[in-house]
Amino acid sequence: MKKAVILLSGGVDSTTTLAVAQRDGFECYAISFDYGQRHRYELQVSAAVAERMSVKRHLTVPVDLRGIGGSALTDDVEVPTDRNAEDMAEDIPATYVPARNTIFLSIALGWAEVLGAFDIFFGANAVDYSGYPDCRPEYISAFESLANLATKAGVEAAGQFRVHAPLLLLAKADIIRTGVALGVDYRNTYSCYAPADDGAACGRCDSCLLRLKGFEDAGIADPTRYQSV
Amino acid sequence: MKKAVILLSGGVDSTTTLAVAQRDGFECYAISFDYGQRHRYELQVSAAVAERMSVKRHLTVPVDLRGIGGSALTDDVEVPTDRNAEDMAEDIPATYVPARNTIFLSIALGWAEVLGAFDIFFGANAVDYSGYPDCRPEYISAFESLANLATKAGVEAAGQFRVHAPLLLLAKADIIRTGVALGVDYRNTYSCYAPADDGAACGRCDSCLLRLKGFEDAGIADPTRYQSV
Repeated sequence: MKKAVILLSGGVDSTTTLAVAQRDGFECYAISFDYGQRHRYELQVSAAVAERMSVKRHLTVPVDLRGIGGSALTDDVEVPTDRNAEDMAEDIPATYVPARNTIFLSIALGWAEVLGAFDIFFGANAVDYSGYPDCRPEYISAFESLANLATKAGVEAAGQFRVHAPLLLLAKADIIRTGVALGVDYRNTYSCYAPADDGAACGRCDSCLLRLKGFEDAGIADPTRYQSV
Repeated sequence: MKKAVILLSGGVDSTTTLAVAQRDGFECYAISFDYGQRHRYELQVSAAVAERMSVKRHLTVPVDLRGIGGSALTDDVEVPTDRNAEDMAEDIPATYVPARNTIFLSIALGWAEVLGAFDIFFGANAVDYSGYPDCRPEYISAFESLANLATKAGVEAAGQFRVHAPLLLLAKADIIRTGVALGVDYRNTYSCYAPADDGAACGRCDSCLLRLKGFEDAGIADPTRYQSV
């Protein structure tokens, strides 16, 4: 059974990506990051998703990006709310964490090399996150090339590393449909950038709005627990 | 004054690289990594070097790579000693940390983006570290391409990120001569993979042996404090 490393935050996209990797027959090693995100709830959720979906192993790597700054997800900066799709697509959002995907993929690559895995899955999406440069197809190809030059395994195996982004060109509704078809229980996933202390989603940040619209477009009931306002 | 981010471990190579970046007129931001290295002394040394060389800012980023494993530098595996140059060059050494340069460069890239810097300096050397895939010129070019795709700044500035590896093709003796000419005090630097508790270098690991030979070849007295054996 081929091994794969899956970047897992416990949100809709990464959880669906994990289900896709399992469907494709990989033995799955999930990796999450404690990067100083303001909302620690994400760490519990990714661990719970990993356990429920019976991954082979789940690793949470501490990498403290708060010293670097520059993002509403790690700094004490307000997460934008109630934006429409046009505003979201307009430019790079305040929630962009500089070089985050590159940092996470690099650490996943290191773990893959140790495990003897050549496949890395991540839930990048170029449709909803069009403002994030590190969610574009050309970025993913570039990282794949780098992976094969950067590692002992890549050099010896002559370019076998693959970065899979199976959701890259899917709309949120299609992602949710895919996941539901694969048996994902989205009740256990988490998307909110600014949840309440008890973990209830705000329903107003970009991530909640994309999730709400995705379920609506898919015609599937959203099992998320939102804050009552 | 243009800003640059410099990867700084406090060893001969990274310290010389910092001196080169300063000579080239950059305002220098030094970044070090607390990656779970067994020998914590490195963290004090990099901070001391940064202070003595008056960098604009020094940041130490915690990124715990111990969970990933696979290296004598982070795991409880013996650091090889007394190897000759041929053995060192032969294959990837036990001290190789999977994807380490990629991880460190990625985090440096994130900081550079926040600072508005487009120049990253690192002390990769393809001569002494010929066994490390991530010290080769083609690797550095690939990371540079990735940096320009991965970031908001790279996209908006149309490919301005540069990864400088000024020592890439220099022998250790030439690196030391360069540093001495630039006023580097190597007494404050640190290379050993397995120092004593008081910080004295072992004189027997690959890194010490390369350093000793470099000073010898350069005809310069090695100011390092070695363990008396």
